[in-house]
Amino acid sequence: MDNNIQQRITASFNKQGLMHTLDAKLALIQAGEVHITVPFSAHLSQQHGYLHAGAVTSIVDSACGYAALTMAPTGYEVVTAEFKINLLRPALGPAFIAIGKVQNAGKLLTVCTGEVRKLDDNGTVGKTVALIQATIVNVVHNG
Amino acid sequence: MDNNIQQRITASFNKQGLMHTLDAKLALIQAGEVHITVPFSAHLSQQHGYLHAGAVTSIVDSACGYAALTMAPTGYEVVTAEFKINLLRPALGPAFIAIGKVQNAGKLLTVCTGEVRKLDDNGTVGKTVALIQATIVNVVHNG
Amino acid sequence: MDNNIQQRITASFNKQGLMHTLDAKLALIQAGEVHITVPFSAHLSQQHGYLHAGAVTSIVDSACGYAALTMAPTGYEVVTAEFKINLLRPALGPAFIAIGKVQNAGKLLTVCTGEVRKLDDNGTVGKTVALIQATIVNVVHNG
Amino acid sequence: MDNNIQQRITASFNKQGLMHTLDAKLALIQAGEVHITVPFSAHLSQQHGYLHAGAVTSIVDSACGYAALTMAPTGYEVVTAEFKINLLRPALGPAFIAIGKVQNAGKLLTVCTGEVRKLDDNGTVGKTVALIQATIVNVVHNG
Repeated sequence: MDNNIQQRITASFNKQGLMHTLDAKLALIQAGEVHITVPFSAHLSQQHGYLHAGAVTSIVDSACGYAALTMAPTGYEVVTAEFKINLLRPALGPAFIAIGKVQNAGKLLTVCTGEVRKLDDNGTVGKTVALIQATIVNVVHNG
Repeated sequence: MDNNIQQRITASFNKQGLMHTLDAKLALIQAGEVHITVPFSAHLSQQHGYLHAGAVTSIVDSACGYAALTMAPTGYEVVTAEFKINLLRPALGPAFIAIGKVQNAGKLLTVCTGEVRKLDDNGTVGKTVALIQATIVNVVHNG
Repeated sequence: MDNNIQQRITASFNKQGLMHTLDAKLALIQAGEVHITVPFSAHLSQQHGYLHAGAVTSIVDSACGYAALTMAPTGYEVVTAEFKINLLRPALGPAFIAIGKVQNAGKLLTVCTGEVRKLDDNGTVGKTVALIQATIVNVVHNG
Repeated sequence: MDNNIQQRITASFNKQGLMHTLDAKLALIQAGEVHITVPFSAHLSQQHGYLHAGAVTSIVDSACGYAALTMAPTGYEVVTAEFKINLLRPALGPAFIAIGKVQNAGKLLTVCTGEVRKLDDNGTVGKTVALIQATIVNVVHNG
């Protein structure tokens, strides 16, 4: 992974309207692993006041996609083909961290796994609220 | 499905902060099937300006959950245990409709499938952008 | 779909040791849809005497893969990248039919859905025991 | 996990006709983790002579189910509700090991992840050929 990838991921993340709307932040970019954090907010809630599964999914899908991008061949970008997510418990807490990790990087397809965990006020990483397994495709990068 | 379920779904939907943030609307509630629409907006985009997969996922996950609720035993509510989604093409269009349908309603688990399709300005339903298969749990309703 | 694809599918199916072991048969090959049947047998059972989920999965995964092959570009073969399957009820019956259907055929990836249903002695198609959603990759065909 | 669970798993495994047909063996039973091995055999092949995805899936689905059983409340048995599997590379080798691990054991649902890896002739564990994420239900045990 070169600096260029780190810059491309940061630039791409900043262009995502939804990541701004979620107030999500890139917390780590390293080869094969990306972290994204999101604070809880009432405008992201589901009907019981927990973080909505859609918000949980958005950050961990992005974390997996960017993790895959760190391993993509030069000149390629990535598109998520599909993912499967298990929601383990209510997403109740002040903030959350999504951790996406590459499990296998092929020429065409990259398989990632990831999790979303609670983040306590002091930054302690808590219980896992979701587990994901995702398939990401390498496609030729246009511009 | 009685009127009560229709009211419960509408009330539950209105309590979801994320659905307001997405400007999503309940478009249909019938036994075993629920539709939710969302207009495209820049604050829901991914890096290329399409509707973010997280927004696509949020509405179809909710459509499946509420479809399951129409078939849940009296006194129960539902929680999504997991889902798998395939993203078929870029979500590029003025609006989108998520269609969630019950495939099998068991005592404990309900399996739904769903899709998200483009909605043209004249309301024509267009190409499918995502396909989902979800597992929803019936849990005793508290209040 | 030309005759050549039909022949390729039949030849490929016949080379699968596991399909012989399961005593599975190709029941239909048409553009975008393939059916495979399997009789129940004690050597394919799980611990309660039903057809094992592994056998259920084997035939519907193959039905989806061959359905994808009917839509693959000339000169390509297919490889299943991943699938997700819901097991809806015990696979209890004299025989079963797996139905694989193409939902979207892209240049690179094909998405199929499928189901496994009971087959009564008189050939009547009964309840659905499993639902699948699969992602299949087109790869250049070697010989 | 008590001895009783170990005996129940062994007895259950031995009743599975398909596990005999695959010549699969229980290799490890411990709290939250179960291993199953299978030797390659031509009668389990797909069309290119690799181990069929259906056989790969059968052993890792069983490994996950039995791992979940080690954590189930007393008086319960388990049923797999659904799983998602990524097939990472051709299953080419003399033997394979499926490793199922509990990630979260709830009162009702247990979520497991698992993998299938190559086993070389000397017993060395090699590359991962498949990754699974599964949802298993606790149901009251009858007899």
